[in-house]
Amino acid sequence: MSAADAVLAVDVGGSSLKGAVFTTDGRTLAPATRPTGTGTAAVDAIAGFLRELADRAQAQGLHVAGAGVVTPGTVDERTGVVGYASNLGWRDVPLRDLLTAASGLPVATGHDVRAAGLAERLFGAARGVADFVLVPLGTGVAAAVRTSGHTVTGATGAAGEFGHVPVVPDGELCPCGQRGCLEVYASGGGVARRYAARTGTALRAEEVVARLGRDGAADAVWADAVAALSSGLVTLTMLLDPRLVVLGGGFTAAGDALLVPLRERLSRQLVWRAAPEVRVAQLGSGAGRVGAAVLALRRCGIAPPAALVPAPG
Amino acid sequence: MSAADAVLAVDVGGSSLKGAVFTTDGRTLAPATRPTGTGTAAVDAIAGFLRELADRAQAQGLHVAGAGVVTPGTVDERTGVVGYASNLGWRDVPLRDLLTAASGLPVATGHDVRAAGLAERLFGAARGVADFVLVPLGTGVAAAVRTSGHTVTGATGAAGEFGHVPVVPDGELCPCGQRGCLEVYASGGGVARRYAARTGTALRAEEVVARLGRDGAADAVWADAVAALSSGLVTLTMLLDPRLVVLGGGFTAAGDALLVPLRERLSRQLVWRAAPEVRVAQLGSGAGRVGAAVLALRRCGIAPPAALVPAPG
Repeated sequence: MSAADAVLAVDVGGSSLKGAVFTTDGRTLAPATRPTGTGTAAVDAIAGFLRELADRAQAQGLHVAGAGVVTPGTVDERTGVVGYASNLGWRDVPLRDLLTAASGLPVATGHDVRAAGLAERLFGAARGVADFVLVPLGTGVAAAVRTSGHTVTGATGAAGEFGHVPVVPDGELCPCGQRGCLEVYASGGGVARRYAARTGTALRAEEVVARLGRDGAADAVWADAVAALSSGLVTLTMLLDPRLVVLGGGFTAAGDALLVPLRERLSRQLVWRAAPEVRVAQLGSGAGRVGAAVLALRRCGIAPPAALVPAPG
Repeated sequence: MSAADAVLAVDVGGSSLKGAVFTTDGRTLAPATRPTGTGTAAVDAIAGFLRELADRAQAQGLHVAGAGVVTPGTVDERTGVVGYASNLGWRDVPLRDLLTAASGLPVATGHDVRAAGLAERLFGAARGVADFVLVPLGTGVAAAVRTSGHTVTGATGAAGEFGHVPVVPDGELCPCGQRGCLEVYASGGGVARRYAARTGTALRAEEVVARLGRDGAADAVWADAVAALSSGLVTLTMLLDPRLVVLGGGFTAAGDALLVPLRERLSRQLVWRAAPEVRVAQLGSGAGRVGAAVLALRRCGIAPPAALVPAPG
């Protein structure tokens, strides 16, 4: 191993931390996950994970230049403060300052979905596209919006809550407390919950998808999911006029069962304009971590590599 | 009159052109309207109106530095081409080049609603706000979106079609051909049409508003309008996280009959986050023209004045 530079990257999820070491020439080393915890324990867990990743990098003869940490919630990239992250039990946590003090490294913090959008733009499905939306469809749904080469963060860092766009007036109750939110219908959690409510049978969303065409309840729940997602994408298209929609998250494992009816419905609903292209993300669940690494590189004044070398294993 | 500089400004509407001369010290002279026409006749009408405004300016001893013309439709501000404007019968019209050739002046072209947003930001209700949305509610509905100090135009110049966001799945047919569009319910045209469909009586939207509290059909149509607009603003808030929503257009003449229930409903629908502030626009129907003047000044490398002197009369 050469004494190349490296950065540490951690993608903070509600239940697990995903971390890795990224070298400045685009290699990914030591990918690992750790439990997250909540409140200050979550901050301690991230700090401990960063120390562990730094040890792993140094053991390989790498100089650690800095770290990037991305989280859900309302994230102010300028101040490094997480305003609110419900899954983590955080409110007004000065994450960047806390992790800088704990690690002794330059630390960049950012928003998980926007970081995934950055990664797909540099290395994935949205390479070279100035106007696109990344929509991760998982347990919940969000969006990273890029318009004319600018990333939309909003006045309080809370932009991109695509999962809580109302698609059905006075519709079904969302765990968020609002009614008729997109992710009530068009998310892994929503499909599983709605299938169970209809049938009394608890299945994961991918099991519901596996029953399409031979289970009327699965067909109905899935049709509602496609309709809700199409309606949400019509809204996005009307407001933001993206060239490209990149779908990510576990929901895209449905493949053509999602893409074929979604593209058809979206084109049909958009009567007087062309639909944006709809593609599936390329970096999978590692996108947030890649984006965190890019934020760390930028924080250290290092240009990101031109391409990523896939992680081993 | 001093030999100050001036620019010409024209706001192109479906039925009329609104024009004026703006001096570099912020005065508005010679406000006037002319019929628009369609197709090439509309381009000729704009060119003729610019000549007329130039004569008016020169008669006052003003040097005309350039002109700004703003239009509806999909407008590419970089190329000066209007891709599509249904009311004008335009498709791929190189408006900036045509008007530059016809007038012999430096000409800037832009989008009418985005220009109104620019005007409200420099001189009106959104002064100094980096994240806001201007929503003109008139016969139809649109939006000018500003996020982190950048104006959203979209990949094809077609961003901001807030009136065609779907708010009711498979809802009433919109003249645009889509179903359940926001402006079917929450526009001057929509309110008048829906009141007439219920009662057989043709009233203008302001006449429907005048009957609120003593006409059940008026109350019902208005409640639907407020609900649709609130739903649309929830969507905008979730996606873009604006600090401020500025409502413009004739619909705002309803005053508290609009603002009070709208703010109440918006706050109630946004369960887990604060609602953006909702204000009424300050520049009224002149905002597009003011924005056109600012585009012209920029085109000529002249800084816009710090404040506007109200037009006489």
